[in-house]
Amino acid sequence: MSEIVRGLEGVKFAQTRLSKVDGQAGQLTISGYPLEVLAPNACFEEVLFLLWNDRLPTMAELKRLQIEMASQRYLPPAAVGVLREAAARHLPLMDGLRMGVDTIGLCAGEPHPAGAVDVGCAVAIVAHMGTLAAAYSRLLKNQTPIDPRPELGHAANYLYMLTGQEPHPEAARALETYLNTVVDHGMNASTFTARVITSTRSDIVSAIVGAIGALKGPLHGGAPGPALDMVFEIRERAAKSGKSVAQEAEAWAHETVSAGGRIMGFGHRVYKVRDPRADVLGEAARRMFAVTGEAKLYDDARVVEDVMLRVLEELKPGRNLRTNVEFYTALVLHGIGLDAEQFTPTFAVGRVGGWTAHVLEQVREDRLIRPDAEYTGALGREWVPAADR
Amino acid sequence: MSEIVRGLEGVKFAQTRLSKVDGQAGQLTISGYPLEVLAPNACFEEVLFLLWNDRLPTMAELKRLQIEMASQRYLPPAAVGVLREAAARHLPLMDGLRMGVDTIGLCAGEPHPAGAVDVGCAVAIVAHMGTLAAAYSRLLKNQTPIDPRPELGHAANYLYMLTGQEPHPEAARALETYLNTVVDHGMNASTFTARVITSTRSDIVSAIVGAIGALKGPLHGGAPGPALDMVFEIRERAAKSGKSVAQEAEAWAHETVSAGGRIMGFGHRVYKVRDPRADVLGEAARRMFAVTGEAKLYDDARVVEDVMLRVLEELKPGRNLRTNVEFYTALVLHGIGLDAEQFTPTFAVGRVGGWTAHVLEQVREDRLIRPDAEYTGALGREWVPAADR
Repeated sequence: MSEIVRGLEGVKFAQTRLSKVDGQAGQLTISGYPLEVLAPNACFEEVLFLLWNDRLPTMAELKRLQIEMASQRYLPPAAVGVLREAAARHLPLMDGLRMGVDTIGLCAGEPHPAGAVDVGCAVAIVAHMGTLAAAYSRLLKNQTPIDPRPELGHAANYLYMLTGQEPHPEAARALETYLNTVVDHGMNASTFTARVITSTRSDIVSAIVGAIGALKGPLHGGAPGPALDMVFEIRERAAKSGKSVAQEAEAWAHETVSAGGRIMGFGHRVYKVRDPRADVLGEAARRMFAVTGEAKLYDDARVVEDVMLRVLEELKPGRNLRTNVEFYTALVLHGIGLDAEQFTPTFAVGRVGGWTAHVLEQVREDRLIRPDAEYTGALGREWVPAADR
Repeated sequence: MSEIVRGLEGVKFAQTRLSKVDGQAGQLTISGYPLEVLAPNACFEEVLFLLWNDRLPTMAELKRLQIEMASQRYLPPAAVGVLREAAARHLPLMDGLRMGVDTIGLCAGEPHPAGAVDVGCAVAIVAHMGTLAAAYSRLLKNQTPIDPRPELGHAANYLYMLTGQEPHPEAARALETYLNTVVDHGMNASTFTARVITSTRSDIVSAIVGAIGALKGPLHGGAPGPALDMVFEIRERAAKSGKSVAQEAEAWAHETVSAGGRIMGFGHRVYKVRDPRADVLGEAARRMFAVTGEAKLYDDARVVEDVMLRVLEELKPGRNLRTNVEFYTALVLHGIGLDAEQFTPTFAVGRVGGWTAHVLEQVREDRLIRPDAEYTGALGREWVPAADR
């Protein structure tokens, strides 16, 4: 009897050329590019092309993809109907997003995005995700959804559909950097879900709907909100007490750790050094806040980060609790005007790029994914009719 | 660098008390009961209770579950709207089923079936599956969906909603035996999908929607249709030639094998002896056909089966190609009046019982499922702006 590998931790089931997470070195490679090289320079459409084709597009290829994506931003009426009913029942954003993506097969456009697996379907799904997340986000607030604008890039258009205003170029750039940063990250649970579904030779809509369902779980999609809440709480305390942010951060850290609490935004299952995504997002936040007038918030967040790192090293030596992606995710997404509830759906708007690429890769692998389990239940029970039980 | 286990074959990731597949002995155990003891005796609701609670219900518990399920058979208007649009676009039955289940959170009833994981949610989903599969099946044929009848059991009501006529008790019993037979089967790809999604602490609707997506793939949900087509084709040849069904079966088998073709309905990845499900379904078919006037079709199918087994042993010695579940699935489901396109959705109507039980079991396990992959892509690529590519 073979041993049980709980959670399949460390078991490799396939090869991938999409991303490499090196937790010891603190490096993330996306299709050959170090994250810090790719994320701040590329537009989101360039990264999608890269993941799907293993090379960056020429200018002409990029323009073609941008036009194709812009043409696929419109929702079928039935999808809007479902979102309206979901909003009336106050279903969470991720539920609305999952239901919306599930109806993509109702789009009038050809090629038909359901029932197949190819780059055309991938384009349709990625393009729709932004519109769905923005539309449902507004419906939940009793606001009318805003029609997409074809001349804006994917990131800028997402912000436009959320607010109705064309975003500041630095805000759009910050979101673009965020989407690029989270587009793929090795074999996480949602990506794996998409690959398991694909492995039965099912279609790409089924795979992405499954992935959204997995991302919805708090152990995966997580909640970057609390890391930012901490910064705000510390600033508020400093404003009241007249002490510095650094002093209040130090007090907050000691209180939290001695009460057995966890300091959100620090520590990662894989990264034992600084999460490379934190640097990229930190720099994106700095650039954006410099022009949007919240430079003080950025500075305070840096102060809080420094204090937390020092106190964690002091109180939990050797645990290597470094700044993770959540800390600066919260700062960037707050900076571009998103609520905490919109963080996970916006994560999905980026990660769907990786999901679709993994689906295409799994199609080439073409191997059913089907592990085993050990039966520990009863055996040989005897039937007793209901009347005699 | 650890070795890659393609498809995770043979890797155990968890324990289960739900079902045990013994391929060498040809035995299937469902929550402690040998399949041949449970499937022909229990009603589907009894098997659901068994999977969820690891014991059969008392008469009072069974009545309560039957009433609860009957009360959850009604579809929310938005679900019907989605199914109508899907039918207008001729989307396959499994797509409609997946979309329909995805909207269960729009049901008016409380407790709210989305966003949680408990037996109440499981009841709601299993109850809705029958209505959705029947309604969408009718819409695809330009027929009006038929409202459920609360006084019928789950299996009988499914047949009633498909046809508008109360089914012959033996047809309902045959369907019940079929649903019980396919309700769970170890760690197949759809069940595993449901467990991966659940492992992120997501909700049960997300898990089941993912499982339907996986079952939709032809490597999993399969197509029991061709096994029956073979029987019909051989009968037709016999009618024309005046030879016996046995003679035509023998000729057909030799032709197919020498042309390199596969004889559908024989051989299984796991079972190296007779698939225990084939016996249970064969007996269900015999009983039903005896009263529904197609005893001759049953007899001919047995003749074809006997010839195929003999010829396969002759032409492919040592391969152990025995009758699998597909052969008699096709016969039973055809006998109760289903088309070949309805076979996989009807499979889902049964298997959802196992999926929901695995979701509940995975909640107790509470361990993120997340294997690894080996990166084989490029490293250290240098950024070149689009204009210079």
